Amino acid sequence: MIRSLKALPLTAARFAPFGEVLEATVQHRQTMNDARFERYRDLARVDMAGDKGVQPSISIARCRAATAFPYRLEMLERHPNSSQAFMPLSNFSFVVVVAPPAEAVDAGAISAFITNGRQGINYHTGVWHMPMTGMQSEQEFLIVDRAEDSALCDEHFLADPVIIEL
Amino acid sequence: MIRSLKALPLTAARFAPFGEVLEATVQHRQTMNDARFERYRDLARVDMAGDKGVQPSISIARCRAATAFPYRLEMLERHPNSSQAFMPLSNFSFVVVVAPPAEAVDAGAISAFITNGRQGINYHTGVWHMPMTGMQSEQEFLIVDRAEDSALCDEHFLADPVIIEL
Repeated sequence: MIRSLKALPLTAARFAPFGEVLEATVQHRQTMNDARFERYRDLARVDMAGDKGVQPSISIARCRAATAFPYRLEMLERHPNSSQAFMPLSNFSFVVVVAPPAEAVDAGAISAFITNGRQGINYHTGVWHMPMTGMQSEQEFLIVDRAEDSALCDEHFLADPVIIEL
Repeated sequence: MIRSLKALPLTAARFAPFGEVLEATVQHRQTMNDARFERYRDLARVDMAGDKGVQPSISIARCRAATAFPYRLEMLERHPNSSQAFMPLSNFSFVVVVAPPAEAVDAGAISAFITNGRQGINYHTGVWHMPMTGMQSEQEFLIVDRAEDSALCDEHFLADPVIIEL
C-alpha cells in the first residue's frame, strides 16, 4: 500500500526528535566582535559517536539533477557514527524526511518537512533520513559530517514506498 | 610607523600556511546520491587541538555594523584550542587577515586576502587572524568552531597599526 505524506513547515520543535534546525533565532542571540556581529551560538553540536580524536570534515554539495515533488521515497539512510549538518549557501527551500533512530525504519513514524529558505538542519547520529535532494540544479549546501575514510552509511529500503508531497 | 597592506585575491595556495579555503574546486569533486549531487569532499577538517570527546559547535553570525576599508588593524586574535571555519551564506566577499601561529604576532608576516564571494575559510588552530568584519550589514556566515564553554581566545595588540587596503 502506497501512502502519501505532506511535508510540514520545519520548526525546531517538530524537528527536535531528529536533530537541530540551523537558523538565527532570538534565543541564541549574542553580540560578538564589539557588537559588529550578532552570533547565534551553538545551534548544533557535531557528534562523532564518541570516537575520540576523529576530526569532522567540511564539504560542499552542489545539486546536479533537481528532484521533482511529489517524490516517491523508497529508501532512507543513516550514519551510525556521525551527525550530519546541511546548510544552504543561498536562500532556497529543501525537503527533509526523517525517521527516529532505531535498528530499522518504522514506516509509520516517517516525518516530512520543508524548510523556509534560510534554515539548515543537523541530523543527530543514527537518524534515518532521505538522501539529500535539491529542487533546483546548482543549489549548494555546506556539509559538516565525518570524513569519508571512517564514515558509515546504512540503507533501509521501504516495503511500501511513501509519496512525499509539498 | 604605520604601514599599509593590500588584500590579495584569496587562493588555496596563498592560504595554505593558515588554513583551508572552502570552495567547490574540481580536484575535490565526486558524485553522491546517484549523481544527483556533486560533492566537494573533505575541504577542511575541524580540529579541537587533540582534546578528545569535545564536540565542535555550529553557529551563525550576522553582520550588524559594516566595516569600511581601508581599515586600521590594531589587534589580531587566535584560538589555541580550535580551528574556526567561516562560510558565507550568500554570495559576498570578505577580508581575511592572518599571521602564522606563534607565541606572538610577527607583524612582518601579516597577510591580507579578499575572497571571491563564494569562498569560505577555515583557520587552523592557533592561527592569528583579524576578528571577522563584514562589508555590508545583514551578511551572514556559518561558523564551525569550539563551543563557548571550552573555547579559548587570545588577543595580540600590534605595536604599530597596519592599514588594510582593498
